[in-house]
Amino acid sequence: MVRASAAVAAEQPPDWREFGPLDLSPILAAALEVFWEHGFHGATVREIARRVGMTVPALYYHHENKEGLLVALLELGTGEATWRTRAAAEEGAGDPAKQLTNVVEAIVRQMTQRTRLATLDLELRYLSARSRRRYAARRKTVENVLAEVVDAGARTGVFTVADTEETSRALLGMCQSVARWYRPDGDCSPEEMAARYVEIALMTVGARRGPVRATRRR
Amino acid sequence: MVRASAAVAAEQPPDWREFGPLDLSPILAAALEVFWEHGFHGATVREIARRVGMTVPALYYHHENKEGLLVALLELGTGEATWRTRAAAEEGAGDPAKQLTNVVEAIVRQMTQRTRLATLDLELRYLSARSRRRYAARRKTVENVLAEVVDAGARTGVFTVADTEETSRALLGMCQSVARWYRPDGDCSPEEMAARYVEIALMTVGARRGPVRATRRR
Repeated sequence: MVRASAAVAAEQPPDWREFGPLDLSPILAAALEVFWEHGFHGATVREIARRVGMTVPALYYHHENKEGLLVALLELGTGEATWRTRAAAEEGAGDPAKQLTNVVEAIVRQMTQRTRLATLDLELRYLSARSRRRYAARRKTVENVLAEVVDAGARTGVFTVADTEETSRALLGMCQSVARWYRPDGDCSPEEMAARYVEIALMTVGARRGPVRATRRR
Repeated sequence: MVRASAAVAAEQPPDWREFGPLDLSPILAAALEVFWEHGFHGATVREIARRVGMTVPALYYHHENKEGLLVALLELGTGEATWRTRAAAEEGAGDPAKQLTNVVEAIVRQMTQRTRLATLDLELRYLSARSRRRYAARRKTVENVLAEVVDAGARTGVFTVADTEETSRALLGMCQSVARWYRPDGDCSPEEMAARYVEIALMTVGARRGPVRATRRR
């Protein structure tokens, strides 16, 4: 499809809050589907090829093997998470509380709007040592953006944090766990879910005193 | 092995902080090993039987199928997590901050001292709907204990929580994510890791103002 606005769009950076459909090749789209249904080990290249209407040798022309497909998808997911997280942090530059708000929103949105891609991260440990190292380095970038924001807030006295490193890792783990149970057809929108985790994250770094009265939804 | 202290031990409840070796049958021990190495879908009953030195039909005499092995291990893991979490909460009865401290310690210890068993939880979504429902109910117990503690703290004004339900789920996600990267041969003991997450969890519920100076380990 020809995009008339392509020239205009190129002039301004994409909005980290906007999630369009995933731009996947037919092979990667089929691989994502099969990995989601059967897990990496249960998936077969034969089944992926069948869904694209391709022979196995034709598929191998594009991707080295099954691991190559997983790596391509993982890199796509972390690539997207990285630019969104960075853009979210930049938007709040100079204001660590705003930065943390944005970054947590970006990560939780990624988990709720790219659930299948985010879930692939769980297959990481089945990668070969070489692929795992390369991917882990990219993946670390999101954690580093978060750590920089937490550190900036702690240094300027906006946040109260005993251990910057561990707190950043804990916040990331907290946000990422959303992908494990979030249901797009449930009663909580990605925006609402992000808002809840922003509140919890601000509490975690001592930047918010929430309402004293507890609310229980059930 | 005959345990001389069995009669004495039966008189007092087991200590939730004590982790002995996992009490697994040879078949389940082999299944845990093979699931860990290859994932649920990549594992074969043939390979599990081979490691126990058993024929496949003999193995089927004890366990219905591969899913039955996974369910048995998952139930073992949640069963252990449940009694430890409950005992940890009971030990601090009447003092929500102490209860949260104990419960977070119990969960993080479970993640760091039963890493392989805890990681199986990621295979949950490959279970049949029936097994998944049954297991999810058991698994929910740990979350409920945590929610009760957070709720008690919020009601008595010890904690400051905007959303008890979501905060409990976030705390659980945070603690559980430890199993994904914790290395028993690394430089952080289960005790130290638990202590770090206790501090972070107390911050999250507004029960602690940590030191203002930020520390970075790298």
